[in-house]
Amino acid sequence: MVVLGIDPGITHLGLGVVEVEPKGTLKARLLHGEVVRTSHKEPAQERVGRIHARVKEALARFHPEALAVEEQYFYRQNELAYKVGWALGAVLVAAFEAGVPVYAYGPMQVKQALAGHGHAGKEEVALMVRGILGLKEAPKPSHLADALAIALTHAFYARLGAGKPL
Amino acid sequence: MVVLGIDPGITHLGLGVVEVEPKGTLKARLLHGEVVRTSHKEPAQERVGRIHARVKEALARFHPEALAVEEQYFYRQNELAYKVGWALGAVLVAAFEAGVPVYAYGPMQVKQALAGHGHAGKEEVALMVRGILGLKEAPKPSHLADALAIALTHAFYARLGAGKPL
Ligand SMILES: [Mg+2]
Repeated sequence: MVVLGIDPGITHLGLGVVEVEPKGTLKARLLHGEVVRTSHKEPAQERVGRIHARVKEALARFHPEALAVEEQYFYRQNELAYKVGWALGAVLVAAFEAGVPVYAYGPMQVKQALAGHGHAGKEEVALMVRGILGLKEAPKPSHLADALAIALTHAFYARLGAGKPL
Repeated sequence: MVVLGIDPGITHLGLGVVEVEPKGTLKARLLHGEVVRTSHKEPAQERVGRIHARVKEALARFHPEALAVEEQYFYRQNELAYKVGWALGAVLVAAFEAGVPVYAYGPMQVKQALAGHGHAGKEEVALMVRGILGLKEAPKPSHLADALAIALTHAFYARLGAGKPL
């Protein structure tokens, strides 16, 4: 199963693609990773248009059967929530056009799925992502690591028939 | 000058197209108005995909030279801000693909431009929109009225060479 994971953001959007073995303990292969960067100096439609184009390209190249995003929680940051929403809007347009279903998981669910308990730290999750993908080093930058963690979390849920559609 | 105005929303997105006379007092003609509706029961990518498709269709049909949206302010409603952001993301993708610049105006600017003072009520603005467009009745529903007000506000600013890019 190929899963495209997205860590949504307007200045930095993490995008990772993994191929997960269908059975046994969770084992996966890293197919692709990138971070889409945009600047507040660019017109909004160029920022969001580029995010859309890059996600579309990854969908066309890897044909994932699912796209998974991290659920966002914002506290007193409406402006940020709004602009991260723009980025996710572009992701959703690309998924819709490609006919790929979208799933979402919260931070607690990522920690639960990958580290086995909901209060794991960032490092513990990164270590598990590295182990599952068989990488020599933890994936960097953090936006890419988060995107891969989300992709693997979906794989975990999907294998249990418990994917969470957005 | 043809302007596409958008009142962004995830359950109701107002979309209005006006053709504005280039000179003299602000006079305009209503070319098109619709409200795109989506339900929280639909998958997110279908909601956002439909908004994208409808905006794209309006851009292709009317070839506006600008797209104008209402700037959003949210208070303690991060969840809402995020989802309205999805809708605007879809709008921005469509604008980018069509090569149409996007502008944004706040509620005070709309009132200032259309009613002449920043503390005008909804009814006063609606009355001005109706007058400028030469309509027998005020446009309904409110999301369409808001979209038309935004389109006319941009026309006002653009004629002064003072458009506000998003
Ligand atoms: Mg409205």
